[in-house]
Amino acid sequence: MKAKVHVTLKPGVLDPQGKAVEGALAALGFAGVESVRQGKFLEIELAGDDRDAAERQVAEMCEKLLANTVIEKYDVEIGD
Amino acid sequence: MKAKVHVTLKPGVLDPQGKAVEGALAALGFAGVESVRQGKFLEIELAGDDRDAAERQVAEMCEKLLANTVIEKYDVEIGD
Repeated sequence: MKAKVHVTLKPGVLDPQGKAVEGALAALGFAGVESVRQGKFLEIELAGDDRDAAERQVAEMCEKLLANTVIEKYDVEIGD
Repeated sequence: MKAKVHVTLKPGVLDPQGKAVEGALAALGFAGVESVRQGKFLEIELAGDDRDAAERQVAEMCEKLLANTVIEKYDVEIGD
């Protein structure tokens, strides 16, 4: 079973990495870019086939390791 | 208009960051994790409302800046 996890900064938290990309895109001549926010994307391959258990387990992974929940939010999606 | 971009390592390319997460999850006692791959996730806010033009522009951003196409692939999704 595969879990897809997005870890992104909460709204309002300054994103220097996104700002750097924004600046670089402008320097390369890309017009019309209003904002860029950068986050992490993880694909986790899990044993077993209990989707609910997998979702709970991955949420716990996010709480304990993958996300800094003070400034980041996470979104878990369980696929096949 | 918002573009969501996933930049991930191509299959077969070694992912030390993913391996580190995998090791850390095992050390924290999470069982059943078979593999972890880590990528980047970008949300780009664009002016205008031509979806096709936006998709072409973001693909060009990926080719020129956001992805290293020797080892990474990208996926662009245009939302509202």
